[in-house]
Amino acid sequence: MSSRVAKWWIQGLAVVAFGMGFALIGGTAQAETLQQVMKSRGLTQQNLLAAAKTYVPTGKRDEFLAFSSGGQSGHVIVYGIPSMRILKYIAVFTPEPWQGYGFEDESKAVLNQGRINGRDITWGDTHHPAPSETNGDYDGQFLFINDKANPRIAVIDLKDFETKQIVVNPVFQSEHGGAFVSENTEWLLEPAQYAAPLGGEYAPLERFNEQYRGGVTYWKFNREKGRIEPENSFAIELPPYSQDLSDFGKGVSTGFSFVNSFCSERYVGGIERDRPPFEAGCSAKDTDYLHVINWKKAAEVAAAGKVTKINDFPVIMMDTAVEEGLVHLIPEPKSPHGIDVSPDGEYLVVSGKLDTHTSVFKWSKVKALIDAKDYAGTDPYGIPILDMKKALHTQVQLGLGPLHTQFDVEKGIAYTSLYVDSMVARWDYIEGKLLSRIPIHYNIGHLMTMHGDTVKPRGKYLVSLNKLAIDRFNPVGPLHPQNHQLVDISTGDMQLLADMPLPLGEPHYAVAIEAGILKPKIRYKSGTNTRTGEISPHKTRAGEERIVKKGKDVEVWGTLIRSHITPEIIEVDEGDSVTVHLTNLERAEDETHGFTIGKYNVHGSFEPGETASVSFVADTPGVYPYYCTEFCSALHLEMQGYLLVKPKGYKAKVGDLMPKEEYGKADYDKQTATNVATQATIDEVVGFITSHNYQDFPEVVALVEDATDQLGRATEAKARAEEEAAKEAWNSATLWAGQWWQYQVKAADIGLRAKTFLEQNGAKKVK
Amino acid sequence: MSSRVAKWWIQGLAVVAFGMGFALIGGTAQAETLQQVMKSRGLTQQNLLAAAKTYVPTGKRDEFLAFSSGGQSGHVIVYGIPSMRILKYIAVFTPEPWQGYGFEDESKAVLNQGRINGRDITWGDTHHPAPSETNGDYDGQFLFINDKANPRIAVIDLKDFETKQIVVNPVFQSEHGGAFVSENTEWLLEPAQYAAPLGGEYAPLERFNEQYRGGVTYWKFNREKGRIEPENSFAIELPPYSQDLSDFGKGVSTGFSFVNSFCSERYVGGIERDRPPFEAGCSAKDTDYLHVINWKKAAEVAAAGKVTKINDFPVIMMDTAVEEGLVHLIPEPKSPHGIDVSPDGEYLVVSGKLDTHTSVFKWSKVKALIDAKDYAGTDPYGIPILDMKKALHTQVQLGLGPLHTQFDVEKGIAYTSLYVDSMVARWDYIEGKLLSRIPIHYNIGHLMTMHGDTVKPRGKYLVSLNKLAIDRFNPVGPLHPQNHQLVDISTGDMQLLADMPLPLGEPHYAVAIEAGILKPKIRYKSGTNTRTGEISPHKTRAGEERIVKKGKDVEVWGTLIRSHITPEIIEVDEGDSVTVHLTNLERAEDETHGFTIGKYNVHGSFEPGETASVSFVADTPGVYPYYCTEFCSALHLEMQGYLLVKPKGYKAKVGDLMPKEEYGKADYDKQTATNVATQATIDEVVGFITSHNYQDFPEVVALVEDATDQLGRATEAKARAEEEAAKEAWNSATLWAGQWWQYQVKAADIGLRAKTFLEQNGAKKVK
Repeated sequence: MSSRVAKWWIQGLAVVAFGMGFALIGGTAQAETLQQVMKSRGLTQQNLLAAAKTYVPTGKRDEFLAFSSGGQSGHVIVYGIPSMRILKYIAVFTPEPWQGYGFEDESKAVLNQGRINGRDITWGDTHHPAPSETNGDYDGQFLFINDKANPRIAVIDLKDFETKQIVVNPVFQSEHGGAFVSENTEWLLEPAQYAAPLGGEYAPLERFNEQYRGGVTYWKFNREKGRIEPENSFAIELPPYSQDLSDFGKGVSTGFSFVNSFCSERYVGGIERDRPPFEAGCSAKDTDYLHVINWKKAAEVAAAGKVTKINDFPVIMMDTAVEEGLVHLIPEPKSPHGIDVSPDGEYLVVSGKLDTHTSVFKWSKVKALIDAKDYAGTDPYGIPILDMKKALHTQVQLGLGPLHTQFDVEKGIAYTSLYVDSMVARWDYIEGKLLSRIPIHYNIGHLMTMHGDTVKPRGKYLVSLNKLAIDRFNPVGPLHPQNHQLVDISTGDMQLLADMPLPLGEPHYAVAIEAGILKPKIRYKSGTNTRTGEISPHKTRAGEERIVKKGKDVEVWGTLIRSHITPEIIEVDEGDSVTVHLTNLERAEDETHGFTIGKYNVHGSFEPGETASVSFVADTPGVYPYYCTEFCSALHLEMQGYLLVKPKGYKAKVGDLMPKEEYGKADYDKQTATNVATQATIDEVVGFITSHNYQDFPEVVALVEDATDQLGRATEAKARAEEEAAKEAWNSATLWAGQWWQYQVKAADIGLRAKTFLEQNGAKKVK
Repeated sequence: MSSRVAKWWIQGLAVVAFGMGFALIGGTAQAETLQQVMKSRGLTQQNLLAAAKTYVPTGKRDEFLAFSSGGQSGHVIVYGIPSMRILKYIAVFTPEPWQGYGFEDESKAVLNQGRINGRDITWGDTHHPAPSETNGDYDGQFLFINDKANPRIAVIDLKDFETKQIVVNPVFQSEHGGAFVSENTEWLLEPAQYAAPLGGEYAPLERFNEQYRGGVTYWKFNREKGRIEPENSFAIELPPYSQDLSDFGKGVSTGFSFVNSFCSERYVGGIERDRPPFEAGCSAKDTDYLHVINWKKAAEVAAAGKVTKINDFPVIMMDTAVEEGLVHLIPEPKSPHGIDVSPDGEYLVVSGKLDTHTSVFKWSKVKALIDAKDYAGTDPYGIPILDMKKALHTQVQLGLGPLHTQFDVEKGIAYTSLYVDSMVARWDYIEGKLLSRIPIHYNIGHLMTMHGDTVKPRGKYLVSLNKLAIDRFNPVGPLHPQNHQLVDISTGDMQLLADMPLPLGEPHYAVAIEAGILKPKIRYKSGTNTRTGEISPHKTRAGEERIVKKGKDVEVWGTLIRSHITPEIIEVDEGDSVTVHLTNLERAEDETHGFTIGKYNVHGSFEPGETASVSFVADTPGVYPYYCTEFCSALHLEMQGYLLVKPKGYKAKVGDLMPKEEYGKADYDKQTATNVATQATIDEVVGFITSHNYQDFPEVVALVEDATDQLGRATEAKARAEEEAAKEAWNSATLWAGQWWQYQVKAADIGLRAKTFLEQNGAKKVK
């Protein structure tokens, strides 16, 4: 570093350290009035009010976090309410390189749990997210999400927003309405969708009524381990009625669950055979069946072993279910989508998409009919059917294509989506009265209110999950984004606040959790395999990095820290199997490092504290740069290394990596002079921080910790430089002095961030 | 349908058709004042102004579309400015199932162009998007994006926002600063990054100075075909200086391009060998080199055949480059990132990340030195070096860690990101004067202004692409979103407007195009292979669907339309190779259909008019439901079918699909009565539309076209039902009458949307 550059650097630090003078220079800003802005942007008063209700200033937080399925993208989407800003796409069923998901060995192991018939499934059709519950309300611990196409359930831990487990349904060929959770997350409910022979058997369509079946699976969840226990789970065989969305009872209906169906006609299409299509035959009758299932008793029946094993999984067959009184049917308006249980558990709301009414069943009536064995008949499989009229509380004409209902904080108030009308209805399900409707854009599927399917809805906001956007946004080609619309329900009516495009995937269902309930961590205990939660056997500490070659197997234990990868050179032979285990040594918030080796399809993402591994066969000789893929510091681009794959038969020569000495005593003296001056400036920044009440700001305490860490490393590099200088090894001494300066720059970066934070957040001088 | 349900349906339609009465029922809304909202949400006047400047009401458009790299997610991210809402993630290097990318055979063919050394590369590290230009300004036709990890360039067509081509760099082992385009998009510039032997050869690190090389590739772009032509492209060999970000000259500097570098020390680290790491050795000297390349002349030299073929690709070797005067070097402050050419082409702005200054070179001075062969010396490879001071216009002390510069609409005004300071500087690069600075959160990498690197910057907005978010958003685990901050630059100063989380990937660089310049299409010509733009040989019209089996190869030609897949049943034998070609028959905007077969890892996305194919081997016998994965109509769930994979040796029996007749004359009469009543209501909606000036609304004209289409299909189904009824085939007649009604429901859905649109957009009665 020339003394001129050094001087600039120090002056630069000083300017920031001693004043915000720069920020005040030469502003020629003209004061703009709100009226001018509204006029130039064509905003109405109503628009401005909506803007005020949704705008979240820098550094402020959203009130709720929404978790939405990503549909055929295979992800879960997390966004804030009311800002409608998307915070994360959580990779679940589809490999995703930014998160290293499906690229690191550890996350590959999770995806591999989801293989079916020996085949990798590299996507999923996520539909219905469900948060874990305690006493019927969300507790912010876990999120469950299903894959409709390949019947699977995944477990996401909300401590780090990562997918931890995938279970494959061993009995069904497809599903849809899952997962739903019981009030204390003992069980997850996964109903089948399109009927098929259980367990994957073949049977011709001619045998549809006799051999095709639906069903429900109850997965046992172990909250302590945070994992589903397939060995303690069971299924119930059901008729081939295309089981669909479901819900667990709560409050007075605890112990029961409710499962919709469509195409209880058991129709099989075949347009190409000149038969009317499925859509005609599956909507020919007026009613389908609501399944009422006594899951508490079913669990006892399963535990008693009254099951048939299908693919080694216990299934309560229909005869047993009938005999034990586990399942009852109630006719419901045809082709329904949602079945939604009121917060107190007393009302069961069902909307038939091809009816203009929403039907409200009353649990106490249903229960009385069941207890009295007051049946209207049985279906072809001997399952008792309750009389629809006797079970009904009321039916309310809401509009065309009613679909899904969520509940308000105000007792009796519910919101129902109207697909064909492109509207949301606000209504009273106890009084049986429509209150108001609001148009949405366009064709709403599901909707959600805050904690709207729990025992304690929070009101405030409603989100309309529209299936079509059409003309709402700037056009981006034939494939449109989806449109979630935010509606204010805090004032006793509905006001449209904002449109939100969904840029990837097609959400079907979403849930929103109060932000304060979520307590995610910002770092891992050093050396954590984040997918198992355990300390990895490959955890590597600084100084323990090593490369071990055994035959054709090369194993590397390395580390990542601003801004170098250790080791920086890996030499292997053509054909070697290489595994690189890396530990991110950082503790600072948001200091993720990535790792890739060019052309070998290798990538990993390493959060602070994480240990993960990448594996590949070095089958092509050559020189392959590797580098950090996450911009981590001013010297990020220099966070690089080389994989050398020696061709078969290549004879290595011994020699220095760098042939000549580049730097002498003068260079060393210049660098150390810079460092000493830089240190003085850093000390002044430190002085500013410590002279203020920084300990009242946890964010700053964390930054100070990180800066102290960097300065400790600077001290080590300084010692090393001085040691080399004492030996008059000037080249090496100069380079180590440079490294010492690199750590100082990082400490300065962090220190300046801390100082700015204190200035912007009203810190007070304490001495 | 019972007469009760039919009545509800008709009443429902009627209510919507004849009045908005419902929407006005029972509103208990309390008027909320803006002041109340501001108080309860803790908003300042400044916040409210920012909200007013960024809020985009429903149905209104953003002014600019930003195209951002997705970093290691492998995508390109499209978002609107000023709303900062993300509109699309375009899949480029990473398979993405929502778009069918890497799942359909047609898009697999694009990804397969990117295979390297026989290996699938299932991700990419996208860095620098570049829009196509005409006369130095964005023309909205194409977007180019690079992959740093696996040196590749992709071409995205902005007519449909799809990736059309991937080319692999045949000479380099990594790159970074690409693509950049020449003023009329004749050439794309892709510079190498980490030095390595050219063409993928092996050489030990001991031979770094002698055998490791950098370089630049100039890819020829054929605008008419919309494809890169590798056969007309070439590269130039350069010293192993880690070439980096680049820019084409414009205006006075047309014909030249400029390429930064770092680690011109040619240092090789090796912490594990007790050598200081790369980051120390690569920042040891005060200056690196700006490469000044005469590309017009280089293209002539390449065309003249003065090249060496490496992997069959023409490379101008360094000796030739020196001999022909193609390359000159200028020292530049060390470890620079951006090199940015002013709108008039006269000023070359370079920021050294480890310097506090930004350096402005003057093109007329540089050109004069080159023309006069006024050299300060040559580098070890014989390349002439210009004197830095003689080439400089000015140096301005902006702050710590200057990185990237973009230009304002006002002449002489530029904005430069300051990484270490976490600030943006507004300054005058002609006068050499810092004007003001604004803090950002945190650690900005690149920044962008509107058309800020073209000959015609638009001003208005600046976006700060921050590398760390830390505490800005609700926490979502150790892996944080990135943070793009929107800054208002319209008033002569900088005002922070909004924070935007990036939920997937790590953007590096972004560009923003005036929304009006983009003219994407909303549908394809029927039967289009969207990846080639040609009509697919597998285009299938309604009625032409067929299944052809030849030996073990089964080929299916099918269609998709609301709401059925034709064929609905596909029967194959265990072990058959199956290809399903599907054509989406829709013409309506946003009517995408998906297609999946459970458990076979098969998925496709079919936009209106698209033909695409999925292939698999039916190696596991059983019954596999298939269905549409994109919610497309009220009967979407019924858009299903069955793949039957017969086990080896299975003997099929002949029989009817449905064993018994379900429906009689009474059912038929009930259904047709419903249909007739429904038609009357539809006619009234149609009456509303046609009695208004709907033809003044292109959106409504499109809807009317679609509704007419659906009604045409209803008429066909009606004829079929009546034909069956005439034969007294009541079961079939009833089902076809049901299908007739299904089409009516779709027509009603569309008609209601059109009617609502007219009401909300002030249509006038015309008769």
